[in-house]
Amino acid sequence: MKPGKLYGVGVGPGAPDLLTLRAVDVLRRAHVLAIPRASQYATSLAWRIAAPAVGDVAGQERLFFEFPMSKDPSLLRPAWETALDAMGERLLAGRSVAFLCEGDSLVYGTFVYLLRAARVRWPEVEIEVVPGVSSISAVPAVLQVPLADGVERVAILPATHAVDDLVPVLEQFDTTLLLKVGSVMRQAVAALERTGLVDRATYVSRATTAEQRIVRDVRTLRSDKCDYFSMLVVRRDERSGRLMDGDGPKDDGST
Amino acid sequence: MKPGKLYGVGVGPGAPDLLTLRAVDVLRRAHVLAIPRASQYATSLAWRIAAPAVGDVAGQERLFFEFPMSKDPSLLRPAWETALDAMGERLLAGRSVAFLCEGDSLVYGTFVYLLRAARVRWPEVEIEVVPGVSSISAVPAVLQVPLADGVERVAILPATHAVDDLVPVLEQFDTTLLLKVGSVMRQAVAALERTGLVDRATYVSRATTAEQRIVRDVRTLRSDKCDYFSMLVVRRDERSGRLMDGDGPKDDGST
Repeated sequence: MKPGKLYGVGVGPGAPDLLTLRAVDVLRRAHVLAIPRASQYATSLAWRIAAPAVGDVAGQERLFFEFPMSKDPSLLRPAWETALDAMGERLLAGRSVAFLCEGDSLVYGTFVYLLRAARVRWPEVEIEVVPGVSSISAVPAVLQVPLADGVERVAILPATHAVDDLVPVLEQFDTTLLLKVGSVMRQAVAALERTGLVDRATYVSRATTAEQRIVRDVRTLRSDKCDYFSMLVVRRDERSGRLMDGDGPKDDGST
Repeated sequence: MKPGKLYGVGVGPGAPDLLTLRAVDVLRRAHVLAIPRASQYATSLAWRIAAPAVGDVAGQERLFFEFPMSKDPSLLRPAWETALDAMGERLLAGRSVAFLCEGDSLVYGTFVYLLRAARVRWPEVEIEVVPGVSSISAVPAVLQVPLADGVERVAILPATHAVDDLVPVLEQFDTTLLLKVGSVMRQAVAALERTGLVDRATYVSRATTAEQRIVRDVRTLRSDKCDYFSMLVVRRDERSGRLMDGDGPKDDGST
């Protein structure tokens, strides 16, 4: 029997209307939806985003999987194994499986791990990745600041593994995005103060959702335990208008 | 009279079904579509992407603007002025204007300049940015490689202003995206060879369109004049599977 196709579908950052037409089509046509959630007691964010456009499809199976919000392999590995076993059973029976990913499938997501494992487990299974609007696009849109412009450079860092050597990155890049900054805000604010960039930073959590929060004085967050779905955007903005202003002392990009 | 609203709408990387539901809705409802193209003899890529979903809307005006593919302010400034004048006339007459952006509106796009100018010219005009699937998401999806995973870091650079100091970036980041690499392929390949990463680089142009081109041996491109809508993706991939493999010599992220 020809196995079913596996899809990794980015459902966008939070607002249901930021799904792509392709995502809606794939999610409506798949035999099985594989849907991550933080625990069996939690509503799935990915499904909350997709449900308004996908709705109830006759005969479609929804599989919910619990992926703890952790980087601890001993917690994650059993969750991945459970998901892979259940998905494999459907795929090898010829059923298509669409795995829903918050944001984009290939930006720090569970699907990256599943993709690697899927290739090893089921080399005969065809895989398609449907790109989505990631927080990398959504957060600048919400703030109406450029991600990058003209000659600018962008660094994207997972905050939990970047606070120790954040200063040189902040100094060398025009825009720095610190993802999942929630648990390390204090250290991130300290690095921003050391580089004199604390006024150039903005905190955004749950962008494009009803719970969206924007904090422009990030010093006030120093002691907060912030949201998991959160980002710090740091814009030096020294080269802004470079092309519009013509020549000038900033024109060589020096700081 | 209340002025019309200005929208910057990312239409995605090239495939018409990678528009978001919100983009389709905004583009159908706007009184005026402002559509960039490379010259008056060229088909607009942005409109080619959006047209299948947007179609002909009764009473909707389409304004085409020529933005030369250049970074030369003396060529671009008159083009921006023409576009701003025409858009302003409509906005101040109470008509909504949606500016179409290939990919995402805030990633190295014309809209970044228009946004800055709009705020100065028409402080009373409400602005909304509709994020789109950018090439930063689309190219990894096409290649089925992670943009970032676990503890990895991503650098995004405009190739034309990055080839001279590319080596340290390639050494410090797990994924490097070199955008608009077309005119500097020779220098980019030289930097990749110096860092021993030439086998870790992939060239993609016009991702998700019918003209999509993927080249896995980028040395063969050294002498080509490549496409403007092109990207080099460099993945060190040293930490891949870090969480899945558990502990080991790679676990501290050292190289």
